This record gives sequence, C-alpha cells and structure tokens, in this order.
Amino acid sequence: MILEISVSEIKSRQEKFLTNLKNNHCDAALLFSVTDIFYLTGFNFRPSERPIALIADAQGVFSLFVPRMEVEHAQEYAVISTTYDYPEYPGTTHPMEYLKKVLQDKSFDSLSVGLDAEGYGSAKGYAGPSITSLITFASKVSIKGLVEEQRYIKSSAEIELIKESARWGNLAHSLLAKYTHTGGREMEAESRATQEATKAMFETLGAGYRPYGSPAHAFYRGQIGPHSAFPHSQNQNAMFKKGFNVVSQAACDVWGYKSELERTMFIEEATKEQETFFNHMYEAQEVAFRTIKPGVPASKVEEEVQRYFKDHGLTQYVKHHTGHNMGLLNHEAPFFDLGDHTLLEPGMVFSVEPGLYVDGLGAFRHSDTVVVTETGMDMITYFPRDFESLIIG
Amino acid sequence: MILEISVSEIKSRQEKFLTNLKNNHCDAALLFSVTDIFYLTGFNFRPSERPIALIADAQGVFSLFVPRMEVEHAQEYAVISTTYDYPEYPGTTHPMEYLKKVLQDKSFDSLSVGLDAEGYGSAKGYAGPSITSLITFASKVSIKGLVEEQRYIKSSAEIELIKESARWGNLAHSLLAKYTHTGGREMEAESRATQEATKAMFETLGAGYRPYGSPAHAFYRGQIGPHSAFPHSQNQNAMFKKGFNVVSQAACDVWGYKSELERTMFIEEATKEQETFFNHMYEAQEVAFRTIKPGVPASKVEEEVQRYFKDHGLTQYVKHHTGHNMGLLNHEAPFFDLGDHTLLEPGMVFSVEPGLYVDGLGAFRHSDTVVVTETGMDMITYFPRDFESLIIG
Repeated sequence: MILEISVSEIKSRQEKFLTNLKNNHCDAALLFSVTDIFYLTGFNFRPSERPIALIADAQGVFSLFVPRMEVEHAQEYAVISTTYDYPEYPGTTHPMEYLKKVLQDKSFDSLSVGLDAEGYGSAKGYAGPSITSLITFASKVSIKGLVEEQRYIKSSAEIELIKESARWGNLAHSLLAKYTHTGGREMEAESRATQEATKAMFETLGAGYRPYGSPAHAFYRGQIGPHSAFPHSQNQNAMFKKGFNVVSQAACDVWGYKSELERTMFIEEATKEQETFFNHMYEAQEVAFRTIKPGVPASKVEEEVQRYFKDHGLTQYVKHHTGHNMGLLNHEAPFFDLGDHTLLEPGMVFSVEPGLYVDGLGAFRHSDTVVVTETGMDMITYFPRDFESLIIG
Repeated sequence: MILEISVSEIKSRQEKFLTNLKNNHCDAALLFSVTDIFYLTGFNFRPSERPIALIADAQGVFSLFVPRMEVEHAQEYAVISTTYDYPEYPGTTHPMEYLKKVLQDKSFDSLSVGLDAEGYGSAKGYAGPSITSLITFASKVSIKGLVEEQRYIKSSAEIELIKESARWGNLAHSLLAKYTHTGGREMEAESRATQEATKAMFETLGAGYRPYGSPAHAFYRGQIGPHSAFPHSQNQNAMFKKGFNVVSQAACDVWGYKSELERTMFIEEATKEQETFFNHMYEAQEVAFRTIKPGVPASKVEEEVQRYFKDHGLTQYVKHHTGHNMGLLNHEAPFFDLGDHTLLEPGMVFSVEPGLYVDGLGAFRHSDTVVVTETGMDMITYFPRDFESLIIG
C-alpha cells in the first residue's frame, strides 16, 4: 500500500509557492526551514550541524543546497531540478560561502529575494554568518510563515494520510488502555502497546509505508494520577494506582503526517468528583465541535469554550487554549485561541482539547483531531470519548 | 537509583554562566534556547508555540518566563528564584509584551544585556516580534554559543549519566543484533529490541530514572543493504537479506544525556570486498582513537583519518567528518572536522565515526562514544567492534 504525497501534488505545491512569491514581490526565494523544505520537495532530512537550503530561482527552478553526504539521498527523493553541495560543516570553507557562490551564479544579487530566515538555525552545534551578510540582494523580503500558511489547508491526499495516522494511533491507544492496570508501570504499558501496534501496522501496510517520524505509539508522558495536573509533563515511569486518572496520548507518523488522540481514563474506578470534572471537559469539547465551521474565526471556538467554563465556575482550572492546527508538525498555526482570528476553512485539521487541571486530583483532557468541512467538521479520531468506556484496568 | 544532575551542580553552572556574562560585558541576560535553559535550570520543557525564556537579572537572580500552563511544573523542577507567566499564545496580548513588562520591571532598559537570540524561534506555529523591537537595552550583546561552549566540557556527574546511557544503549544494541535475521524486517527487530531493553532498564533502575527523552532504543534508520550508502537515511522497513551489511544505531536518554553506538554488521556472511572495506573503516577509527588527547586540535583528528583514507585510495568513499561532541543534544560542537580547530580538553565527549560509503554495496561505519582524559581518551561504548563478532543472524 503506497502512502505518500505524489510527485504531481508536490509540483503543484511548488507552483502555488511561486505564485505566492510573486504576490510578495519576490523574483526568487531561499528557504532554510526543514519542514517547509520537506513540504515543497518531498525530501525528508534529519537536521544536524550541516545546513540545508531550498533555492527557487528567477526561472522558477527549484534546487537543493545540501552537504556532500546527502547528495545521492536528495537526488533520489527530492522533487527538484538539481543539487548543489559543500564538503562538510564547518569545513575549511564555510558552507555559507558555498551557498553565496551558488546564489551569485544565479544572479541573486540583482533580484528581489524572499527569505524565511537570515541563515541556517539548527541548535546542533551549528554556527555561521547570515547569508545576508555575505551577499546583498537587490531587495530582501521576509517570507517567514509563507509556506506555513500554505500548509494550513490540507489536500485530500494529506487528509488521507492524517486519517491513516489516526487509524494506527487508535490501535496503539486501545493497546495502551488494555495494558494499563493497578501496580503496572507507565513505560511498560507504553512500550508494549507501541511495539504491538507498530508490528501490526507494518504487517498490514507492507513496505509502502514510510513513517518519516515515529510509527504507531501511545504514551502517558507522566500524566498519571495527581501529577497529570501538569499538562505538558514528562515521563516519570509512574506506577498506576486504583482510582488514578491518567491522560494518554497516541499518534503515528505517516509520511510525516500526524494526528492527535488523547483520553482521560480512570484506573478501575472514579469518584463522583472525578466524574463531574470529566463531564464538564466532555461538554466543553462538544461546545467546540458545535462551533467549528468555515468562516468562523478560530478565536470564536476558544471564546465559546471559555464561556462554558465560566458559566460553570471552572475558569480557575483552565491552563491552556482549546487546540492547534497540525500536519507535518504536531503543533502548527492557527490556534483555537482568543488572539487568533484566522477564519476557518475547509481542509484545516485541528486538535480539540479543552482541559481542566485540578491540584491534587489531576488532569481532565481529551484531544481529538478534526477536519473542517464545507458545512462544519468531521472527526478524524474515533476512540470512545464517554465516561463509561474510559474506566480501564 | 537516582540519576540526575544535583541542584548544587546546577547552581555552580549558573555561577559560571554569570562569570562568563561579566567577561562578555553583560550585566544581565535573556536566553531562549530550550537546551541551554534546561542545562542552567534543570527544567525540561517541551517546546511548542508557547515561548519560554530564562532571565538572569543584574542581581544574578535567575527566573523563568513561561506560559500559565507550565507554572507549577517549572516551580517544582526548575532551580530558579521565581516564575513570570503569560496566559497563552498568541493571546489577546502577545507573550512578548508580557516579557517586555518583566524586563522593564527589572530595569533591563538601563543594562547591558546578553541575548542568545532576538526572540523565541520555535517552528511550531509561533510568530511574534523580536524582543529587541519592543524594548531597547542600554546595550545588546549577542551571547549565542556562550552556554553551548560551557557545555563542551562535561563534569564527572555528566559523564556518569552518559555512561549510564551507553550501558542501556548496549543492551538495546545486543537485542537488535539478536533479532536481526534473513527475512525479518527492520521495524520488527527495532521495536522488539527497544521494548525489551526499555523494560529491563526500568526494572533495573527503578523510579529514580527520568529519560527526559527516549529510553533505551536501537534502530537501523533505513541503513540496510545497498540503501545504507545514504549515511543519514530514513526508516524503510526494509527486509534483511543474507549478505547485506547493515548499520545500526543505539542510544538512550538519561536525564537528557545521550551516547552514540553504531555498528556495521553483516547478515550471516560477508564477501571479501565487504571485509576489506570494514577493515579500513576499523583502522581509520583506530587512527582517530590514537590521535585524541588534550591539547590536540579537533581538526587534527580529521586530518589523520583523511590521511589514512588517502593513503589507501579510499577518499572517494568518504562523505562526512569523523565525529561530533554530544551531551544534551545528539550533535554538538566541536567537531572532528578540518575546519574546527578547538583544542581538545579533558571531559569533552565525542563520537568517533569515520565512514565509507560504497554505491551498490552499502555503508561501513562504526560510531563509538569516547571521553577525552588527562592523557588521551577512554571508550564509553563497549559493544564489540571486530569483524568476527559482527556477523549476525
């Protein structure tokens, strides 16, 4: 089973990018963002100390600037015309000097050039001059965010990959719930669920599946019992205890595309207090689902959720906004946030995850992945959301 | 078993940072690097759209600027005096406006301020103004790389964590080799080895172990058979075939610290040609080991390795430099590279991984983690390196 974005779709992304460039008064462009480069070329690169850049020249020809070690790899996978390479980082001549030469040969000094950054920005030991300190363009336009904005709306092929991601995330999550029991430990349940889901996925999909990330996995990220009140906690290898609430997370990369599934679950039993907080979280998510439709500002979803929480005296338990776009990254703009007034459009894929955090009791948060449709939204994740189904162990 | 960096060591890192700041003519500092913030505070943060910053004020007091959702988490784990928070990103008032207010209250406008960046730089949907466009400091000093340089030399506690990482990476690697056999698939061997090593590790170390990253894991990253000629390939879920060479990678995060172990192995058998390339790679690694000692420039190690390859007519098969420093990131400066003349010092931890890449045949690369000592170097990884031991399956 082939699960990928086709060459023709990548070429149409490039066409659209060139149009956007023209609209931004650019003759050419230089991009350093690893995610955007993957989006525009299909070349999945592991960022390191070695810079990579995508060049779109005045003729609309795309080429990649890569270290010597990635030349064959780029030539086999990237939808580009050619590669330019440098020996190594830092090398006796810095990679940015090689890039300068390539840009000079393409007459970038006489062009209006769009740039997403002034230079390569990896934290992995890289240091170097900005490219703009080495070569002066006729004019320089910041196009930071331009490709990201192009990525907001997913094509049907992208949505299929996100649905495939949700399918295997669901399996990993089912297994995680199955292996979670009193006296067990976080990592054991996680690694068993992850391993079995990964195996089933590869056996089902065969060799046409490329994760470009992590295959099916499910974990708790330390959100076990009272510690779950830290919404972005870290793995503690905690022990599961009867009556704990736990917050899971399951996902799966499919050709780099992600989905997000999270559930608040209870080990064996829940108190009335836990059930009450759970039900409010559930209702808040319903409020969001009802609000999501094309033409509505993203902020409106957050306003409605916050109104629900306020009406029920729960505002003190809220720590974060309701959701985020996703695709090649697990968090992308726009956001369901009071300050984000982006209008929703069909094809946008969001997490919906209003949460309540109660000191000493823990977290109450589901996260579902949804896609905006012509008339409202569709759920992409489908693990049961109701209280009864989520008493486990 | 408690595996962590102590509060007193973190405080001594902060003291050293303050001294370095003064040497750079800074009264105060503002840092956005997630890795450096973890290093200086012990607060392990999952980067997202929500900015985080570390503030060192003119009194040498450290505080963290975090989103509302991370306040309790930061207060429990970070070695700091206080936290300042903002409600959410982007919010009705942008987080950088809140940061500006905090800095104004600390009189940063009358100070010489060291900055590692002009603003927060996450790719995960974040956008915002540079902090320097919102507040003018008496003077502004770029201290990008200052903490990274402090991280070059590891303390004995850091080296212990890296050794712990190597121990469990070795187990994952042993299991990976054990589960690799003709007709098997990449992901199956990887996930089984990873799961079993993770389980054994948690049972051995108990609840005092915090990965702050990924626990023990081992994988091939697509470097199987001829495809291994791409040095930084991606998982292909390839099938193992008799006579293939494969290049493994095993690691384990221990409180965020990493080691690196890679081996060239052969499924059941190897040709004379494969053995010859293997032996040259082995000898090149020995050349590097003999060269590494305090006072030697990092570039000298690369020169000696390249000389060996040149003397044996192998330069055409070389695609990358010999190694990199590591610690909290898997690649850090300095590098064993012709252009990196940093003098080696005791406590630096490097990968040593000269490689040969032969089209149609595959990759030949081991990677070992070593620490520079007073007189030379010690090996931290210890999986067998010799040809006989690496015929598997």
